Amino acid sequence: MAIVRVEVTYKRGVEDPEAITVEKNLRILGYDSIKKVNISKIYEINLGDTKRDAEDLVMEISEKILSNPVIQSYRILR
Amino acid sequence: MAIVRVEVTYKRGVEDPEAITVEKNLRILGYDSIKKVNISKIYEINLGDTKRDAEDLVMEISEKILSNPVIQSYRILR
Repeated sequence: MAIVRVEVTYKRGVEDPEAITVEKNLRILGYDSIKKVNISKIYEINLGDTKRDAEDLVMEISEKILSNPVIQSYRILR
Repeated sequence: MAIVRVEVTYKRGVEDPEAITVEKNLRILGYDSIKKVNISKIYEINLGDTKRDAEDLVMEISEKILSNPVIQSYRILR
């Protein structure tokens, strides 16, 4: 039973609509100094009992379910 | 000019609809061993030029904009 953490972020140059909304809300509320917000998601996955290699399984899940490989990248955190 | 990272998570006992959807999708796709998925968001904020104390400013933003204090908690990462 392994717990693995995966970080998913938007690739450089791809606009994150949520980050843009946060930046806009910050401006509206008067936080004018703030230049930039980047958002990433951390998935903490309890793999349960499996015969598969943990890293191999997490890479597969990350590519199929947790991220959109066209616009996002992921990395397994140690 | 400081860059600060804030992690926002759902409080214990509060259901995260996104995590539940990910768990469901994993089951549908045959990843039956996986017991639990927890998701947190990391906001990396470039505070820009401000006279305010960075931690004080980030706490204010986290409570007002980045999290819903009723169901989520945040912590400033070092």
